[in-house]
Formats: sequence, C-alpha cells, structure tokens
Amino acid sequence: MTLTLYTAPGTCALASHIALEEAGAEYELKQLDFSKTEQLSAEYLSINPKARVPTLITPRGILTETPAILAFIAQAFPSADLAAQNDPFAFAEVQDFNSYLCSTVHVAHAHRRRGHRWADDPVAIEAMKKKVPESVGACFDLIESEMLQGPWVMGDSYTVADPYLFTVAQWLEGDGVDLDRIPHVFDHRNRMSKRPAVQKALNALRKPAVA
Amino acid sequence: MTLTLYTAPGTCALASHIALEEAGAEYELKQLDFSKTEQLSAEYLSINPKARVPTLITPRGILTETPAILAFIAQAFPSADLAAQNDPFAFAEVQDFNSYLCSTVHVAHAHRRRGHRWADDPVAIEAMKKKVPESVGACFDLIESEMLQGPWVMGDSYTVADPYLFTVAQWLEGDGVDLDRIPHVFDHRNRMSKRPAVQKALNALRKPAVA
Repeated sequence: MTLTLYTAPGTCALASHIALEEAGAEYELKQLDFSKTEQLSAEYLSINPKARVPTLITPRGILTETPAILAFIAQAFPSADLAAQNDPFAFAEVQDFNSYLCSTVHVAHAHRRRGHRWADDPVAIEAMKKKVPESVGACFDLIESEMLQGPWVMGDSYTVADPYLFTVAQWLEGDGVDLDRIPHVFDHRNRMSKRPAVQKALNALRKPAVA
Repeated sequence: MTLTLYTAPGTCALASHIALEEAGAEYELKQLDFSKTEQLSAEYLSINPKARVPTLITPRGILTETPAILAFIAQAFPSADLAAQNDPFAFAEVQDFNSYLCSTVHVAHAHRRRGHRWADDPVAIEAMKKKVPESVGACFDLIESEMLQGPWVMGDSYTVADPYLFTVAQWLEGDGVDLDRIPHVFDHRNRMSKRPAVQKALNALRKPAVA
C-alpha cells in the first residue's frame, strides 16, 4: 500500500507520522513550510481544502483528521496491534481519548496562536492567549488524574493514543503549563521520546524557522 | 448489553441518541437539566469529570466523546451496518467526517455561548459571538461543497456520520448561517428529520427551558 503523509514541523501531524513508523508502514513524507504558507497553495488545497496538516493520501482516498488517520493506520496494519481493533469497547476507548485531544486539548492550545479563527478583535485575540495556560492546564490535569492509565495511555497496551498524547505534550512549555503538576504525563513524554519510531519521526522533520 | 445514555436537550448528545435508535439498541435515557447545572453535581462528575454530555455507560466502562460513542455503537451492533466496520478505509472516512464535526464545527459553534472556556474578558467573549456566523458558515460551506456526498454523508450508505451532521445542523439558525447557501445540508436535515429513529429521539427529550 502506497501512503503519503503531509506534515509540518511542530504540528499535530507528528502523531500520524509516529504511528506510521510504529506500524512499519511504507510511506512517503512531504513537508510543508508554513512560514511560506505552502498549505495555502492551489496544489495543496486541491488535496486538502482545510489547508491544514496532517493529510494522508491512501490508494482509496484522502484522510485529513488525526483521530481518523490513527484509526486507519491501526486497522490497516493489524499486526502492529495499535488500537485493540477486535474489541469494540477497547477500540472505542482509544477513540474517546483521541477525540478529547482533538476537540478539547488541541483546541485550547490553538487559542494561543490561532485565535483569529474565532475572533477578529485584537483585544479578543490577546485575551485568548492569556487564558491558554489555564485552559490547557485544566485539560492536562484531567489527563493526569483520570485518563492516563500508565505506563501507556490505555494501560499495558501501547496504542495510537500514545503518539497523539506525546505530540500534544510537545506544546506544554510553550503553552505555559507547569510540568511539575503532571508527573505522569511528563514521564510518558520522556519514555515516548526514547522509542525508535519517535526518534525517527522527529529526525525526519526540518527544523521550523521559528521555534 | 445494558447501556445508559446521559443527554440534555439541544446538545450534541442527540447524535448518540439517534445512533442508539438506529442500531436497535436497548438503553436507558437520563436527561440532565443544564439550567439547574445538573452536569456539575458530584454524582455526575463521578461518572463524567468533563461535566458535559454525552456520556454512555456500558458494561465495560464509560465513553464521553461523540465520535467514540458513535464508533462504539456502530461496532457493537454490526447488523445495523452504521460505519462500514469491515473496511478500514471506509470506516476511517466516517471517523474523518465525525472528527471534523467535533474538532472544528462544534468548536466554532461553541464560541457563541461557551466563549468563557477560552477567554475571561467580556469584550473577547462578545467578539467570539460576533464571528460565529462566519466561522460556522465556512465549515458548512466546506461540508456542502466537499464532504456531503449525498444522499447520505458517505453516499449511498447511511452511517453514524448522518445523525451527527443532523445534530450539528440543528444549530444553524441560532448560529446565524443562511441555509440558502447550503441546500444539500438543508435537504439532508429535512430527510433525517423524517426518520423514525430521529423522531423517537427528539420526542423523548424534554423541551429546554430556554429555546
């Protein structure tokens, strides 16, 4: 199966990138330079009209949302056993965690630099930035106390929830969240960073022009 | 299988409610009164610390995110054929659509009445409200032009993407989106409203105190 993943450094596409590595998938990586607004090119918009990453091109069609791409990788490479795909409840638990990351945690984070999506007034955009440490912090408090079972997100089984949590946890310092209050998340991030799949994905990325 | 769905009128929990009906599931329905902040009761927080709906209680555990609950219902009731569960790519396409609804469309909508999640300044909260017709409208333009295949979201197959789109489309008038510009979404909403499962779900809900 020929797969192509569009990514950009510093984005949530890292989760799909790591999952492809964990699955042992063959894929081509294409990196967009957001500083040159390559995501707005006519060519890219014809592939992904949302003008965001990730985009996964498969022989059957295109997927553009992280939880869907992660579910697809888990199901298309069953031998990697990345999402308990023969157990509807266990599979749904993975989706539950990933949905929270995409709809609540990533969204809280996005108010730091993408406030223009939801308001035009510069005062409003500044007010959104100001609340990010609190709103992202509250999300991670919940992950720390209620959701991260340990050692992996779903307990003993490593799943596609792990690269996604690792990816979102990359943004904690920038979002102004004190890591001391979330020791299990911090430990998870450290252990994830040592996995060969994670190192390979991170090393493949160009360094962003602005850290 | 004993299932319990927590819902509240006017919320996205309607999607899970309709899906349970479509699947022919036996379930108990519990309605929270948000005007009495019942979602913040100690009893409810012990079930769902996110203090939101939906919550689906299953014999194996609890799910609290719409895309996960919809995936679970589709996979736990395979005879209803609600998400192409034997085809990883087709299944992922359903997740792709549902992820967009939860992470982008619902989030854009939420800035109308839940702006306090992302800013404290009343000026910012007003600025967020003001942009909702534009941001939700842009989401539905994309659904209309690129995503809704017709007659159902995924084409000829009715899936759990359909009750979710119907649910989010309930909010269009309140969000100030002109329905004339999205005729396929409007037609989909009309056809959905005639399905017995949808009528049964809507009739089961208490009328909200504030429309």
